[in-house]
Amino acid sequence: MTRTIVESRTRTAIIGFDQPFCVIGERINPTGRKLLAAQLEAGDFSTVEKDALEQVACGATMLDINAGVVYNSNPNPNETEPPLMVKILELVQGLVDVPLCIDSSVPAALKAGLEACQGRPLLNSVTGEEDRLEAILPLVKKYNVPVVAISNDDSGISEDPDVRFMVAKRIVERAADFGIPAHDIVVDPLVMPVGAMGTAGLQVFALVRRLRDELGVNTTCGASNISFGLPNRHGINAAFLPMAIASGMTSAIMNPVRPQEMEAIRAANFLCNNDPHGAAWIRANKPALAEGEVEAGARGKRTGRRRRSA
Amino acid sequence: MTRTIVESRTRTAIIGFDQPFCVIGERINPTGRKLLAAQLEAGDFSTVEKDALEQVACGATMLDINAGVVYNSNPNPNETEPPLMVKILELVQGLVDVPLCIDSSVPAALKAGLEACQGRPLLNSVTGEEDRLEAILPLVKKYNVPVVAISNDDSGISEDPDVRFMVAKRIVERAADFGIPAHDIVVDPLVMPVGAMGTAGLQVFALVRRLRDELGVNTTCGASNISFGLPNRHGINAAFLPMAIASGMTSAIMNPVRPQEMEAIRAANFLCNNDPHGAAWIRANKPALAEGEVEAGARGKRTGRRRRSA
Repeated sequence: MTRTIVESRTRTAIIGFDQPFCVIGERINPTGRKLLAAQLEAGDFSTVEKDALEQVACGATMLDINAGVVYNSNPNPNETEPPLMVKILELVQGLVDVPLCIDSSVPAALKAGLEACQGRPLLNSVTGEEDRLEAILPLVKKYNVPVVAISNDDSGISEDPDVRFMVAKRIVERAADFGIPAHDIVVDPLVMPVGAMGTAGLQVFALVRRLRDELGVNTTCGASNISFGLPNRHGINAAFLPMAIASGMTSAIMNPVRPQEMEAIRAANFLCNNDPHGAAWIRANKPALAEGEVEAGARGKRTGRRRRSA
Repeated sequence: MTRTIVESRTRTAIIGFDQPFCVIGERINPTGRKLLAAQLEAGDFSTVEKDALEQVACGATMLDINAGVVYNSNPNPNETEPPLMVKILELVQGLVDVPLCIDSSVPAALKAGLEACQGRPLLNSVTGEEDRLEAILPLVKKYNVPVVAISNDDSGISEDPDVRFMVAKRIVERAADFGIPAHDIVVDPLVMPVGAMGTAGLQVFALVRRLRDELGVNTTCGASNISFGLPNRHGINAAFLPMAIASGMTSAIMNPVRPQEMEAIRAANFLCNNDPHGAAWIRANKPALAEGEVEAGARGKRTGRRRRSA
């Protein structure tokens, strides 16, 4: 059974077919968040702190950390991103204890993050592009961490799912040449917007099943991309996630603060027999107590009397 | 490609892998509805009328008609159910134009229903029990209708999904002996409550996939049974349905009046490329217009001016 182990200093999470779905919180990422980008350039980390605490409180298994901000004062990310990545990682791992995912397209930022991060983070990401393979796989091997493998290569992102499968297969084979096992590769099969390509959902479901059955790897995706440009995106996402999970998807980079998507994932965990006795489902869906009402157990303690039945 | 054709007098619906999910409205059924049962015995059909109109308005593809009421004045369903089935069928097909599903465990009621029903109804159901096979399959052949095949037999309902698959296979083979093609068999693999059996969801997903891949049949189920006894049943159902659809399920007997489940099905149709250009999704999720606001097209008409862009 494929198991990808990620760790913070104190906590271990397992990504696997027999595990609850791994929710990788996507919020700490200045891409497309102008206010956050401006705050980071000004040295204000209050939004990062709030996002870290809120995502974990909402049930994130891991947090993605992306420091890809382009400073107005210095447009060279090779200079600005590595120290910012270190700063955010140190801040977040001082606040919360979930494992982290170091997310950058700048190899120097990935390396700096690997030096600064405690435990066993997930590296995000390598692709099938030759220069990325040569730059990233040695880091993965040296630091003994798992890595997200995005299934595009030097020819770009193929619309043909068979090509995307072959790219993923080639990354797994190249990783093996470096001594990196398949269970440390988490493949992102690339999710297209279903509004632009009607087969986008079917492609992901079929690809995830093949990646699981033929390569035995865990999978992830940027889940919300499926609903790009459409009305009621949360409604699409909340059906897409259980369908991907039923097809074998084991993690997603997503917004854990959205209740509709998180409810769908809790239900899918239960339905995949990864929530023993439905304990997590029942805990999350206990009927709210009316004002002034006290739970039977708590009341028993307060009055010192034991109730025979609740 | 497997296609099960059902028809009312004026409308055709197709159950198939490349079709929108077939929602069979379950409400017209006095089992467990004491008030409806009492109304039916008293000759009051107002709830039936309301349920028929409401379910179709909410998007039901077909309506299930069950007349299984035990009269206080006459406890013999062989006498009471056939005329009541005819009465309800005639009433409903006068009110709405969707195809119907004739649902009874009393063969005489199925036969009376087949005589009374216009178009090509779905017969619900045959099982793998020897006396049922002998009683129902000749009706299916004679009236040239599709039939729901429930995968239990004389040994009961097996908890082993391999046994349930074999029962379904045997029904399909027996039907073939009668000259009934596989595309007129809609298998119900039997959904157990996940609260009682943790593998219930996984069993259904695997069975539906096998039924599709190995027998090429359409499938259905009593969807809400999955969440029996649990809190927030709609949350479980709304994840279960997309997961079953991703596994190949093509219809369900369910309550179409529930918006959470119906939204999940509309999203799943889109994600399975069975909602061209997302037209149905977009129509169902158009942002509500603010008070006094008029759509651009309508405004153009009212003022007689054409707007270059909306």
